[in-house]
Amino acid sequence: MYSFDKFHELVTETIERNPFSKTPEELYEPMDYILNIGGKRIRPILTLLGTDLFDGNVEHALKPSLAIEFFHNFSLIHDDIMDNASLRRNKTTVHEKYGVNTAILSGDAMLVKAYQFLEDLEPELFKRATTLFSQTALEVCEGQQLDVNYETKLNVSYEDYIKMISLKTSVLLGAALKLGAIIADSSDEDAEKLYQFGLNLGIAYQLKDDYLDVFGSLEHLGKKHAGDIYENKKTILYISALEAADDKQKEELLYWYSSNTDNVDKVYAVEKLFRALNVNRKLSTLIREYTSKANEYLNAIDIPEEKKVYLRELSEVLIDRQG
Amino acid sequence: MYSFDKFHELVTETIERNPFSKTPEELYEPMDYILNIGGKRIRPILTLLGTDLFDGNVEHALKPSLAIEFFHNFSLIHDDIMDNASLRRNKTTVHEKYGVNTAILSGDAMLVKAYQFLEDLEPELFKRATTLFSQTALEVCEGQQLDVNYETKLNVSYEDYIKMISLKTSVLLGAALKLGAIIADSSDEDAEKLYQFGLNLGIAYQLKDDYLDVFGSLEHLGKKHAGDIYENKKTILYISALEAADDKQKEELLYWYSSNTDNVDKVYAVEKLFRALNVNRKLSTLIREYTSKANEYLNAIDIPEEKKVYLRELSEVLIDRQG
Repeated sequence: MYSFDKFHELVTETIERNPFSKTPEELYEPMDYILNIGGKRIRPILTLLGTDLFDGNVEHALKPSLAIEFFHNFSLIHDDIMDNASLRRNKTTVHEKYGVNTAILSGDAMLVKAYQFLEDLEPELFKRATTLFSQTALEVCEGQQLDVNYETKLNVSYEDYIKMISLKTSVLLGAALKLGAIIADSSDEDAEKLYQFGLNLGIAYQLKDDYLDVFGSLEHLGKKHAGDIYENKKTILYISALEAADDKQKEELLYWYSSNTDNVDKVYAVEKLFRALNVNRKLSTLIREYTSKANEYLNAIDIPEEKKVYLRELSEVLIDRQG
Repeated sequence: MYSFDKFHELVTETIERNPFSKTPEELYEPMDYILNIGGKRIRPILTLLGTDLFDGNVEHALKPSLAIEFFHNFSLIHDDIMDNASLRRNKTTVHEKYGVNTAILSGDAMLVKAYQFLEDLEPELFKRATTLFSQTALEVCEGQQLDVNYETKLNVSYEDYIKMISLKTSVLLGAALKLGAIIADSSDEDAEKLYQFGLNLGIAYQLKDDYLDVFGSLEHLGKKHAGDIYENKKTILYISALEAADDKQKEELLYWYSSNTDNVDKVYAVEKLFRALNVNRKLSTLIREYTSKANEYLNAIDIPEEKKVYLRELSEVLIDRQG
C-alpha cells in the first residue's frame, strides 16, 4: 500500500513527465505557471485514492488524475478573471501576469488538455470517465454562474447557497474520487457512494473555506483576508447572520453588503456582527454535520477498514486545516 | 439521398430538439443567442456529408454534428472577447450583450456541452470521435494564440500565416468531415483523405475571408469593413504587399500597420497600396490553388462520383461567395 506522501509525489512526477514543449509558448506557459504555484494536488490524489480503494492499478490512474487537476486549474484561471482577483496562493493570478486574453485562451486550452489525459483508458472506461468529466465540468460552470448571480442578489437562501457550493466546488471532489473508482472498474453502486462521500466532504470543505476567509489566520490564507466580505459574497456566514439578526443588525448588514467599498471598516463592522450573532459557531457545527454525512457514505462501502485509512485521514486534514 | 437543404434543415431541427431548459438561465441563454444569429451551419453539415459520403446512417451523425457547431460557437464567443469585437453577423456580440464574465463562462459551458453531444456514440466510436475533437480543439486554441501573436509582430512569413489560419479555421472543417467519416466507420485512410480535403478547402475559405474583408461588398459582409486592416492583422494581403513593395511603399505600409488609429484614412491608404501591388489578384490565384489541392484529395477517395456531388457543390459555394 502506498503512503499518502507517495500519492502526492506520484502526481507531481506525472505532471513533470508531461511537460509542455509545445508552441506557441504564450499558450502553454501560463499552464505551467498555475500548475506550479503551490497547489496541494488534493483532487488528483483523490483519484488515486479512489482507484486504490477498490484495488485498482494506481499506475493507470496517474494520467487520468491530471484531467481533474488540469480542469481545476482551468477553472481557477477563468474564475480569477471573473472575480477580478489579483492573488492566488499568494502569487499573481494568470490574467494579471499574462493579460486577460491569454488567460481566457490558456484556460480554454487547459480544459481541452484535461480531456486528453483520459485518452489512455480503453474505450469503455474512457467513455464512462469522459461522461462523468463533462457532466461535472458543466455543473462547475453552473455553480460559478450561481456564484456570480448571488453577488448582486440580496435574498439568497441557505439551500441556494449549499446548491451553489455543491456545484462550484464539491462535485469535482466527488468526481475525482469516482473517476478513481471507474478506473478500478468498481460497481456503479460503490462508485456512487464514493461520489457522495466526496460531495459531502466537499461541501464541508467549502464551508470551512468560508470560515477561514473571515476567521482564519492571515499567514495561512494565501489570499486577501475577508475577500468574501469585500465582494459581498452571500456565504453561509452572511445568510446565517441575516437570519439571526434583529432589525438594526439586519439594516447594518444589508447596508454593508450593498456597498462596494474597499474600506477595511466594512470588514471590521461585518466581522463584529458575525461574532455577535454567533455565526462562527453555527458554521463550525454545520461543517461537522456535512463531514459526518460524508463519513456515513464511506462507512457504507463494503471494503476492509484499512483501505479507508487515507480517505479518513484526508477528510480530517481538510476539515481541521487552518488555511 | 438527401438534398443539401435537407441537411441544413436536419441540423436546425436537431438544435431545436435539444433546447436548454436548464438553469441558471444566465449561463444557457447566451448559447441560444449565438446559435440563433444566423450561422450558416456549414460545419455540422460537413459532418452529415462525411457520414453520407461513406454510406453511414446520417441520423447517427445528427447529435455529434452539434459537437462541431457548439465548439465553433464557443470559439466565436471567446474570440470576440479577445478581438474586442462588437458585431458578429451584424448582431451584438455575446460579451457586448451579456458582459465579459458571462461570455467567458457561457463559452466554457458551451465547449463542455460540445463534448456531450458525442455521448450517444458507442464506446469505440466515442473514443475515436472525442480524441479527434480534443486534438482539433487544442489546435484551434493554438491558431487563435498565433493570431494574437501576429497582431504585434511585424515580420510574419507566408508560411507562418498559412499555419495560423490552418489551425485557427481549417482544421475544424477537416475535423467536421472526418467526424462524419468516423461515424460511418470508414477506413482511417479514407477519413484522412476527407480530412485533407476539408483542411485545404478551409485554407481557401479563410483566404477568401481575408479577401472579402477588404474587397467584399459591405452589404454582404455582416461585420466591420476592413476590420483586419484596423486591427493590423498580418493577413496574406499584407504579407504579399510587403513582399512586392518598393522601399517607399514598404515604409508607408509599415507606418500604417504600426498605428492603432480608427481613422478611415488608414483603410483608404492601405487598400490603395494593395491594389497598386496587385495583391488582390495574387490572392485570388492562391485561393484557386488551395481549392484545387482540396479537390485532389476528394478525387482520391474511391467512391462513386455521385456521392461527392454535395461536397463539390459546397466547395464551390464557399469559394465563390461574395460575403
